[in-house]
Amino acid sequence: MTLPATFNQQLLASQKRCEYALNSALKHLNISDPYLADAMAYSLLNGGKRVRPFLVQATAQAMGIVDARVDIAMAAVEMVHCYSLVHDDLPAMDDDALRRGQPTCHIKFNEATAILAGDALLTGAFEILADMSADFSMAQRLKLVSLLSQGSGASGMVAGQAIDLASVGKEVDLAHLERMHGHKTGALIRMSVLMGAHCGQPDEATLAQLTVYANAIGLAFQVQDDILDIESDTATLGKQQGADMALNKPTYPSLLGLTGAKEKAKQLQQLALGALKNLAGDTSALEYLADYIITRDH
Amino acid sequence: MTLPATFNQQLLASQKRCEYALNSALKHLNISDPYLADAMAYSLLNGGKRVRPFLVQATAQAMGIVDARVDIAMAAVEMVHCYSLVHDDLPAMDDDALRRGQPTCHIKFNEATAILAGDALLTGAFEILADMSADFSMAQRLKLVSLLSQGSGASGMVAGQAIDLASVGKEVDLAHLERMHGHKTGALIRMSVLMGAHCGQPDEATLAQLTVYANAIGLAFQVQDDILDIESDTATLGKQQGADMALNKPTYPSLLGLTGAKEKAKQLQQLALGALKNLAGDTSALEYLADYIITRDH
Repeated sequence: MTLPATFNQQLLASQKRCEYALNSALKHLNISDPYLADAMAYSLLNGGKRVRPFLVQATAQAMGIVDARVDIAMAAVEMVHCYSLVHDDLPAMDDDALRRGQPTCHIKFNEATAILAGDALLTGAFEILADMSADFSMAQRLKLVSLLSQGSGASGMVAGQAIDLASVGKEVDLAHLERMHGHKTGALIRMSVLMGAHCGQPDEATLAQLTVYANAIGLAFQVQDDILDIESDTATLGKQQGADMALNKPTYPSLLGLTGAKEKAKQLQQLALGALKNLAGDTSALEYLADYIITRDH
Repeated sequence: MTLPATFNQQLLASQKRCEYALNSALKHLNISDPYLADAMAYSLLNGGKRVRPFLVQATAQAMGIVDARVDIAMAAVEMVHCYSLVHDDLPAMDDDALRRGQPTCHIKFNEATAILAGDALLTGAFEILADMSADFSMAQRLKLVSLLSQGSGASGMVAGQAIDLASVGKEVDLAHLERMHGHKTGALIRMSVLMGAHCGQPDEATLAQLTVYANAIGLAFQVQDDILDIESDTATLGKQQGADMALNKPTYPSLLGLTGAKEKAKQLQQLALGALKNLAGDTSALEYLADYIITRDH
């Protein structure tokens, strides 16, 4: 399908809002060392797709919330995502020299600075949630700290990385792959949606539907990533095409075949859209996002 | 001076309480990968001195607070301290193979796992502050998140690491050295004291005196570390004696001479004790700690 111009405009507007929010966050952090500040800004302001902040914003929009709380939640999620990329790219991890067509942080700066920049971005995400001025209740701030830490820590994203490390070169089945991605990328995507919801006052039924939506698109996102690793080219991806296959990493196409993987992505998209049907509020941006995730080419 | 038996008993009791709190925290985190869980536990439960948790507990005691809030604050601070050690020991940073007489995390496990374990410990510190059950008000929880993030991030500890990296092999003056240590170790020590205070309801005057105390002992701690790097031996230190000199790192003895450094540590101890005189409440543990910091041999 072709996404309507309005979605691309929404995504661009959201990306701009995210850049603004990230710049405000960096300013708030009052970074004490200039080289560290450069490395943090370089790692944050690199033309990322800003899918997670878009999810925060689109979910908050469905809750009728559009104020500065949303900017802070957007920035916090993206800071965590970007820190994870910086650490993933390190020589001891994926050893990637290229990210979005640019030198990775440890190539541009050095390895020690990349470790520290990642650490500081992660810490800074919690600092801005606790401290930056916005119309949050204390309960909302705390809930966002809780969700972000759960999504990104030892029961979420970092555990996903550890499960991934332990999986390379091993025969794994679909259940294992889903568990890995559910942690590695799914947890933070789910928390992005829930953080957007908790910028408002969501009821339990809404949270349940949003969780179905978020889990479905989180998995779809990964399935599509695996498909793009085969079908796209290095210039479009901004990273090495075929990297997963070269590392003998298990992927959806390797387990389901390319056609099976595409079918799975489509099913997940339909599941996500179905969950939104049960919600009041303006869910248009969330719907478009579910389409975007499986039609994107990078 | 010789510390009284009661202090050593207090310190031992506090270390035991800290071990218990750290075990509870690890359990709370519900770590999804067994190897990651092992690396996190290995890095946390390694017989550390637990100075920062002791500061949390001693300050809370001065505020009359002794309940489970203190355990959570103790664990959070120590998780951040231990994560920083794991990342500092990495080959790209200090490249240390030995920590407290044991193989460092990246030697015992592997480098990728050490990076992830550090990330997860840092994230987990915020998760337990937000989520673990205790008699906190929401304002207290948020304040602890704020203090811990400020102390450990880009305007605190991580910046100190960055300043330190930029200083190796350079001629630096005393002001630079104090700025570096004020960030690198001072910030988290200051926040340990303030987090202990905010387990209760401190007034501004109390916070001001506690800040004087914390800044003085934080600096004294570093001065004593530099002295021990010269005077102690590898077995007692649990790390390589003379490591700073070998790396041509600037130290207090190198700038002030050994006698001058010892004099400075003594002055800082007196400054810390003076600040405590202005406080109501039982400050005995804080006083003993100020003595311990400059009399310890490792």
